[in-house]
Amino acid sequence: MAKQVGNKQVIFKAFVTGFPKESDMAIATSTIDLSLPPPDGAILIKNLYLSCDPYMRNRMSKTEGNYRESFTPGSPISGYGVAEVVESSNPNFKKGELIWGATNWEQYSLIKSLPPLGFSKIPHTDLPLSYYTGILGMPGVTAYFGFHDICSPKQGETVFVSAASGAVGQLVGQFAKLKGCYVVGSAGSSEKVDLLKTKFGFHDAFNYKEETDLNAALKRYFPDGIDIYFENVGGKMLDAVLLNMRIRGRIAACGMISQYNLESHEGVQNLFALITKRIRVEGFVAFDYFPQYQKFIDAVLPLIKQGEITYLEDIAEGIENAPGALIGLFHGRNVGKQVVALAH
Amino acid sequence: MAKQVGNKQVIFKAFVTGFPKESDMAIATSTIDLSLPPPDGAILIKNLYLSCDPYMRNRMSKTEGNYRESFTPGSPISGYGVAEVVESSNPNFKKGELIWGATNWEQYSLIKSLPPLGFSKIPHTDLPLSYYTGILGMPGVTAYFGFHDICSPKQGETVFVSAASGAVGQLVGQFAKLKGCYVVGSAGSSEKVDLLKTKFGFHDAFNYKEETDLNAALKRYFPDGIDIYFENVGGKMLDAVLLNMRIRGRIAACGMISQYNLESHEGVQNLFALITKRIRVEGFVAFDYFPQYQKFIDAVLPLIKQGEITYLEDIAEGIENAPGALIGLFHGRNVGKQVVALAH
Repeated sequence: MAKQVGNKQVIFKAFVTGFPKESDMAIATSTIDLSLPPPDGAILIKNLYLSCDPYMRNRMSKTEGNYRESFTPGSPISGYGVAEVVESSNPNFKKGELIWGATNWEQYSLIKSLPPLGFSKIPHTDLPLSYYTGILGMPGVTAYFGFHDICSPKQGETVFVSAASGAVGQLVGQFAKLKGCYVVGSAGSSEKVDLLKTKFGFHDAFNYKEETDLNAALKRYFPDGIDIYFENVGGKMLDAVLLNMRIRGRIAACGMISQYNLESHEGVQNLFALITKRIRVEGFVAFDYFPQYQKFIDAVLPLIKQGEITYLEDIAEGIENAPGALIGLFHGRNVGKQVVALAH
Repeated sequence: MAKQVGNKQVIFKAFVTGFPKESDMAIATSTIDLSLPPPDGAILIKNLYLSCDPYMRNRMSKTEGNYRESFTPGSPISGYGVAEVVESSNPNFKKGELIWGATNWEQYSLIKSLPPLGFSKIPHTDLPLSYYTGILGMPGVTAYFGFHDICSPKQGETVFVSAASGAVGQLVGQFAKLKGCYVVGSAGSSEKVDLLKTKFGFHDAFNYKEETDLNAALKRYFPDGIDIYFENVGGKMLDAVLLNMRIRGRIAACGMISQYNLESHEGVQNLFALITKRIRVEGFVAFDYFPQYQKFIDAVLPLIKQGEITYLEDIAEGIENAPGALIGLFHGRNVGKQVVALAH
């Protein structure tokens, strides 16, 4: 017997230049029959949590695509999410299992061809399921391997994290502290700066919007220079950081959110410092580390359970609020990891 | 008995902004007594060859100096050179020995405090002594370790070298070819482009001054992208290269000569490619590798003797022509490694 239900979706309307707006997306309702078995190999899932991540801005532009493919105008936005398997014609997934991975911004998704990296099953724990969009999902993998693998941190080194209260930054700061580093973060409001110092244990933090001279600000917080910079923003901040790096410093380039909405990227002028200070800059993407996901979980789950690491989420309720939550990310409106809850 | 002789010197007149000019230097003659024993630990040397190197431009500016100290106005310029020991009060050096290392731009130098990395003695070979300012000196160390150590080259990879006919670039291209890489160079004249293809065996080469669109030029020579970029120039070329790098490409940042004479450095806009393509950029300086000099010599001397590697020098005669030779470097007038011969 057919079981038709409404399926609300966030439709991507057209490619974006400059800052995206809520009106670049539309909420539409299609129908889906939950009683039909999915085609061979496919799974039907109910999306529970959607993840808002800065890299999604790039998918709103028409780009050449050696990174992530652009969104398709007229189709739902896609991204990372947590879901429950409703029906399965894939021997690897059973009805009722909880999973996280690449899904669509809609209430139910028929996943015909599983993405190359598949879905990870979520074991039963008493941790919030939404954590699999953040600390236990892509941002967690980003922070963990970006910091430990790309930055080669040593005890006593100085670490600077930009966008430090975000999904990735808050974790990098805590990993740095656990490693015995001195860590300072920058963020865009005094509320976020307070969080960095009180909730996440950064040694110090500042509001970059209140600094007229970022070079001077960094000199104040790092009088002896920066060994490690975890780069989330790009542009002017990167230029100021280059002037303050120490010899043999390392820069893990994770994101450049300050540039994503600019039609022409800001030019970075201080690259000669790379030579004089023998700096290594290395870009990376989380999905290269997904094959090491279990290693990450084995390291991080105990830290969470022992209270050695904490995580702050900013949860919007309902798919109708998903476009606004995503747009808010580019204005720094979120405080902590931005998630959209579709069902609990 | 006193043996006073005239000692011609190239005096640095004042700090420079923009392009340096010959008139920023002056030829002066002091006197020196060659019969007096040097003070304890010091050596008196007769300079034979002076090396003109791009990094010297930075020493003409007043800079903060975590790299190389600025020149001293009113004193001779200093740089790498080849010399003969005239008198020695240092047990490590004997009269008549040939050495290379940091010296002054003058006919005779009294080296009181030996530089931290000292001088290397030149063994008796039938190779030109001037080679110790180039292929067997600092530029050789730069090319050898910069390419093999920083670029991590693999057979079959594609390599792009800018300033490719210069002291370092001509060697990087030849090392790349010996490694089984496909190598293309850029230079600033058709004469240099011809040299790259005929004398140094680059697979291809182009004159960057004839290209209105560097991105398009690189796409023409590297339709499948660049694995390794040996960066000697910076600025617009780096920006174009970033658009053409392959995933997991490497950039060895050796120098940025296109920027040295600009009062404000060009901004590099395409750094987001570091992330999407997981590129590693690493700056380095030759003197960090000087402790491995013997390893370098053991590898490179046989290659020269077997004719597997060649080297082109552009030798100016006489200290009077030294300022012009140095200035010529910043206009690309030299064809090959620029040397000044003071005595043969």
